[in-house]
Amino acid sequence: MLSKNQIKFVRSLSLKKNRQATRLFTAEGAKTVTDLLQTFRLRQLYHTASYAGPRPQDVSVMVSDDELQRISTLETAHEVVAVFEMPEEVEPVWHKGELVLALDGLQDAGNLGTIIRLADWFGISQVVCSQGTVDVYNAKVVQSTMGALARVRVAYAALPEWLHRLPKECPVYVTDLKGDDLYVQELRPDGVLVFGNEGNGVSDAVRQLATRRLLLPNYPQGRPTSESLNVAVATAVIVSEFRRRVR
Amino acid sequence: MLSKNQIKFVRSLSLKKNRQATRLFTAEGAKTVTDLLQTFRLRQLYHTASYAGPRPQDVSVMVSDDELQRISTLETAHEVVAVFEMPEEVEPVWHKGELVLALDGLQDAGNLGTIIRLADWFGISQVVCSQGTVDVYNAKVVQSTMGALARVRVAYAALPEWLHRLPKECPVYVTDLKGDDLYVQELRPDGVLVFGNEGNGVSDAVRQLATRRLLLPNYPQGRPTSESLNVAVATAVIVSEFRRRVR
Repeated sequence: MLSKNQIKFVRSLSLKKNRQATRLFTAEGAKTVTDLLQTFRLRQLYHTASYAGPRPQDVSVMVSDDELQRISTLETAHEVVAVFEMPEEVEPVWHKGELVLALDGLQDAGNLGTIIRLADWFGISQVVCSQGTVDVYNAKVVQSTMGALARVRVAYAALPEWLHRLPKECPVYVTDLKGDDLYVQELRPDGVLVFGNEGNGVSDAVRQLATRRLLLPNYPQGRPTSESLNVAVATAVIVSEFRRRVR
Repeated sequence: MLSKNQIKFVRSLSLKKNRQATRLFTAEGAKTVTDLLQTFRLRQLYHTASYAGPRPQDVSVMVSDDELQRISTLETAHEVVAVFEMPEEVEPVWHKGELVLALDGLQDAGNLGTIIRLADWFGISQVVCSQGTVDVYNAKVVQSTMGALARVRVAYAALPEWLHRLPKECPVYVTDLKGDDLYVQELRPDGVLVFGNEGNGVSDAVRQLATRRLLLPNYPQGRPTSESLNVAVATAVIVSEFRRRVR
């Protein structure tokens, strides 16, 4: 049985300011919660009778389907809502030979989640977000990572300053309509790939710090098209091409 | 000035049954509406004073920002809401040398829109959806195509039957964890690429009709990962690889 205050507290975590004040966030569904338990400290777990995943004794509470729905951010709640502690914020660090993603002002929660999920698939363990990027602990982002948030470190930084402090040997890639054709360039899995805001792309301050410009060609190449690609789709195509080259 | 009945009518098109009964659908925003005007017959156009796009005289009505918001499906309406006529339904046809996408039970509106958008980018002019796939005239799908719906034909069909009627020479590709490595297979831009439902993948009936099975390798290859890729991301990576091979 949940008290009104408990319901109010969990629901309050749908707002960023409350997540930041408490350093807590929520995740839902057996797969996501089980994955996140590997990485994040659990504060509280609310589950229905049908939930069969891990349920640490001292912090787990069985609730009714109705109660679960009242604390869920989903249209239809799925068996479990967990409250996790955010990890300490750490300064992101690039290591030689590592491929890192940087996101400059991404606004869409689904896009950020999808990018974290594909980073996990393609063995990228670090995503650096500009301060203006959507909050990774937003419930929609957490859900759309499908558990990959447990395996990919996400850090926020003042992006131009962070890029500026990188060693000179670290290539910084941006996409550019006048860039070098992705498919025929020499690509090594080393450096930072920057992707920008859904409407405006990469900011000028960040673009000036890029050392390599890549064109993702459409098909047939050069065909006039009035459109760009979704940012998560563009990220996937480019990361796939980096990975293909080193197999 | 909009009458209550006009507002009610436009809003009613957010439901599939009403779209199907009237064969009408809505689109919003200057970019999308302008693109769709190239392909679809316009029934009615509601715009604010700030809208600078095309506004055919006999069917355009200037409205206030408040009125536009009342007929919009967006959180913040953007200058224009248009009501278009759906085209006639036509049987999808594969032509030798053509690459076609088929979608088997896709449920997420954003995924379908993103796939239509990337089809446009990669020069795929036809997407065939199973009857159980989300409705392409759903407002969220239309918005996330970003205008590409004007350039990509989308047809619905009983997918197993349609695949069964294809000429024997037409390869039918599905993704499969035991399939052939995408990056090293011979690939020609010819045939049908099938992608499945977000949770369950391709149905058994469709899978049995596949003639080629492709593995999209993760990185490092064979690393255990508990996760799959978002379906639009997987579609993008595979289509990009088909297009790369024929440049």
